[in-house]
Amino acid sequence: MKPLRLFFDYISPYAYVGWHTAQAIAERHCRQLVAEPILFAALLNAHGQKGPAEIPAKRAYTFKDAYRKAHAAGLGRLVPPPSHPFNPLLALRATRAVPDSERARAITALYAATWGGGAGIDSTELVTRVLDGVGLDGPAVVARASEPGIKAELKAATDEAIALGVFGVPTLEVDGELFFGVDGLAFASAFLEGHDPVPRDLLAQWAELPASASRLPRG
Amino acid sequence: MKPLRLFFDYISPYAYVGWHTAQAIAERHCRQLVAEPILFAALLNAHGQKGPAEIPAKRAYTFKDAYRKAHAAGLGRLVPPPSHPFNPLLALRATRAVPDSERARAITALYAATWGGGAGIDSTELVTRVLDGVGLDGPAVVARASEPGIKAELKAATDEAIALGVFGVPTLEVDGELFFGVDGLAFASAFLEGHDPVPRDLLAQWAELPASASRLPRG
Repeated sequence: MKPLRLFFDYISPYAYVGWHTAQAIAERHCRQLVAEPILFAALLNAHGQKGPAEIPAKRAYTFKDAYRKAHAAGLGRLVPPPSHPFNPLLALRATRAVPDSERARAITALYAATWGGGAGIDSTELVTRVLDGVGLDGPAVVARASEPGIKAELKAATDEAIALGVFGVPTLEVDGELFFGVDGLAFASAFLEGHDPVPRDLLAQWAELPASASRLPRG
Repeated sequence: MKPLRLFFDYISPYAYVGWHTAQAIAERHCRQLVAEPILFAALLNAHGQKGPAEIPAKRAYTFKDAYRKAHAAGLGRLVPPPSHPFNPLLALRATRAVPDSERARAITALYAATWGGGAGIDSTELVTRVLDGVGLDGPAVVARASEPGIKAELKAATDEAIALGVFGVPTLEVDGELFFGVDGLAFASAFLEGHDPVPRDLLAQWAELPASASRLPRG
């Protein structure tokens, strides 16, 4: 059986919630979960879209909505990091530099430092300290994170996600099917149990539907 | 007690699901529900954002996700309208031209014609037929829909929604608090019962948070 793959970026509070729910889904269905750090900003660039934090009206709502979803998922208080948006590149690369067997532990710790009331992850010192805190060799991981191979790996994973049709984080890939967002992830279990309700004929109809209008001027 | 207000546009399958869940929420909490047709395209213009149907990767996902949400809400099959995107202006204006006491019936019928397997709502004939079908005077309503007063009403409601911070449909306003999307509406009941978990101190912290990075180049 193929592993489930979770595409994520620490920048997103929804991806923080999704990290925990995806682990629960994988465990319930006895599937391996592969965590795929990707750069959310590159998805936005690729799709010509704005992120939730880039629309003032949506930014305020996003925190409340993510808080409610974290609470509903039993994660306790969602706490804003010291700054947001912040640069997640080092943390994403460091995650890829951690050996596979230790990666889940590193991700949980980096997320806790971001959205769980920690000191943040946007400097070498902070990322090193978080990794040291879970028994990894922080300085060695951070050094590896700057190597061209790791940088290329993050870029390739992000490009692959875009090619697969990933447009946001968290996105869980289940046997080729994508589930986006905390609300979308909730449907992955039914899919894994063979109970996805989406009829293929209507999906084909939707794909071939003509447009009879494009973006309209103000009414 | 203030009525709940639901901002919506027929163009959105999520707003179709939201129309039914918002009615259930209002009923459960003994609140009046005021339906506010607005032009979704104008929200996108105001926020400089793309709609889900305007991003190819998201468009396919949106139908599946909305289907699953309609199914979970007990609405049965979500069927694509004959074309999409389509021009919803006449249907939105006609909804505003229907007397208050008949409006819920008209909305349910116009939604059924759009996402419930009907013939669509993007022509005068189609809208007239839908309204006739629920015992309204279709031709009279459609004639009123073209009057300057109704056009101005739709524009004013859309502008008001933007000023309130509405960035998408469906959005339910509950005593000044906004709940967006089918997943967001699910939190309105807890709010109405005084159990919203969002702590005001963290919300204030989020609002005042500095950014330490803006949109990043590819990693």
